[in-house]
Amino acid sequence: MILGKVVGTVVNSQLNFPISGPRFLLIEKCNPKGDRKGDFIVALDLVSAGYDELVMISESSSARQTPLTNNKPVDAIIVGIIDVIDENETIVYRK
Amino acid sequence: MILGKVVGTVVNSQLNFPISGPRFLLIEKCNPKGDRKGDFIVALDLVSAGYDELVMISESSSARQTPLTNNKPVDAIIVGIIDVIDENETIVYRK
Amino acid sequence: MILGKVVGTVVNSQLNFPISGPRFLLIEKCNPKGDRKGDFIVALDLVSAGYDELVMISESSSARQTPLTNNKPVDAIIVGIIDVIDENETIVYRK
Amino acid sequence: MILGKVVGTVVNSQLNFPISGPRFLLIEKCNPKGDRKGDFIVALDLVSAGYDELVMISESSSARQTPLTNNKPVDAIIVGIIDVIDENETIVYRK
Amino acid sequence: MILGKVVGTVVNSQLNFPISGPRFLLIEKCNPKGDRKGDFIVALDLVSAGYDELVMISESSSARQTPLTNNKPVDAIIVGIIDVIDENETIVYRK
Repeated sequence: MILGKVVGTVVNSQLNFPISGPRFLLIEKCNPKGDRKGDFIVALDLVSAGYDELVMISESSSARQTPLTNNKPVDAIIVGIIDVIDENETIVYRK
Repeated sequence: MILGKVVGTVVNSQLNFPISGPRFLLIEKCNPKGDRKGDFIVALDLVSAGYDELVMISESSSARQTPLTNNKPVDAIIVGIIDVIDENETIVYRK
Repeated sequence: MILGKVVGTVVNSQLNFPISGPRFLLIEKCNPKGDRKGDFIVALDLVSAGYDELVMISESSSARQTPLTNNKPVDAIIVGIIDVIDENETIVYRK
Repeated sequence: MILGKVVGTVVNSQLNFPISGPRFLLIEKCNPKGDRKGDFIVALDLVSAGYDELVMISESSSARQTPLTNNKPVDAIIVGIIDVIDENETIVYRK
Repeated sequence: MILGKVVGTVVNSQLNFPISGPRFLLIEKCNPKGDRKGDFIVALDLVSAGYDELVMISESSSARQTPLTNNKPVDAIIVGIIDVIDENETIVYRK
């Protein structure tokens, strides 16, 4: 999984598959401290993540291993909202 | 999913699988503002996207989760035409 | 799919799976004009591509969606020989 | 598989799938000597790896080929704790 | 498939799946001449490759399309030992 921060939303005027409920969020990849890296992806939000939260993202075929995304052309989902990250025995991020 | 802009079309004189209807579009990867990044892929267009539109692309096995691409050697499809992107609570792109 | 140019061939003295017919071609990744990028992959040629031709390549599990590569440890195939690419409403490549 | 060092843990306040037992570890990608590269991923720990250990990580759909991760949206697991790496006929890492 | 050179071996003190026979080899990615690129992966050796040999590697789900790796969390295997590579009509590598 990769680390990313929720920095916005992406709205499609046309989408080639039906999906109701979760939104597509704009994610900026981050290091464990939550520093943004200038690299973006769009992920379907399965955990009701909020703006500026650090999240954990599953990609590729693993993004389809949920009832909502099964058999859908989705290749990135938010699977967790991160509470705490420790790195080198120091807490570097806390929600 | 990744963000890209439709910058052209790719026509094959020979193709090793049958596909009728959608075109292969030349996509340049973009940031959320729509600024081009100089990195290109070719994606099958399932939403009738137009030149210069910002689109959302699914890759790898997720690109085959549609009736048209099922069991075909396609690894990138356009799944949505983007209408609005907001980033840091500002609208940075509008179609 | 990605764009690449056929720049050579790769011959294996030993291969851990049987395959007869297509060759493994050395592919250099390219931009839409056909300029080489110094980054190489090896792809199984399913379209009888020739030296210096610009081709379209499918990767990962999508490379196995053909009768010849089904269930084989192949992760890159040439699926098309490119005839024309237009970019920004100008033809930038013609075979 | 890629080489990484266990540098911390990642705790989720919300997770969209049930998993009990293994923890999500923060992994920094490494070269064979164990030098860190400044690039991080999160992997589910299936071998009870300890802090600062060099580990081997499987990604993408291969990360789901275990009883615990089967059908779950997990795309990176630790599959081995590395004991010895030799490079150019010299031992460059020993646990 | 990608090109790599066998530069060493990786021994795991613990592994979360049974595999007997092939070794995990340390692979350094290469250009077609065999020049090393400073980027490493670990691949299961299915062709009994030797030290310093140039090999062809299949990744991701394609790495599981063999009797030995089927259903195992392996995402990179050596599928061929390279004998000859020609590039731009010149032989640039011979075993």
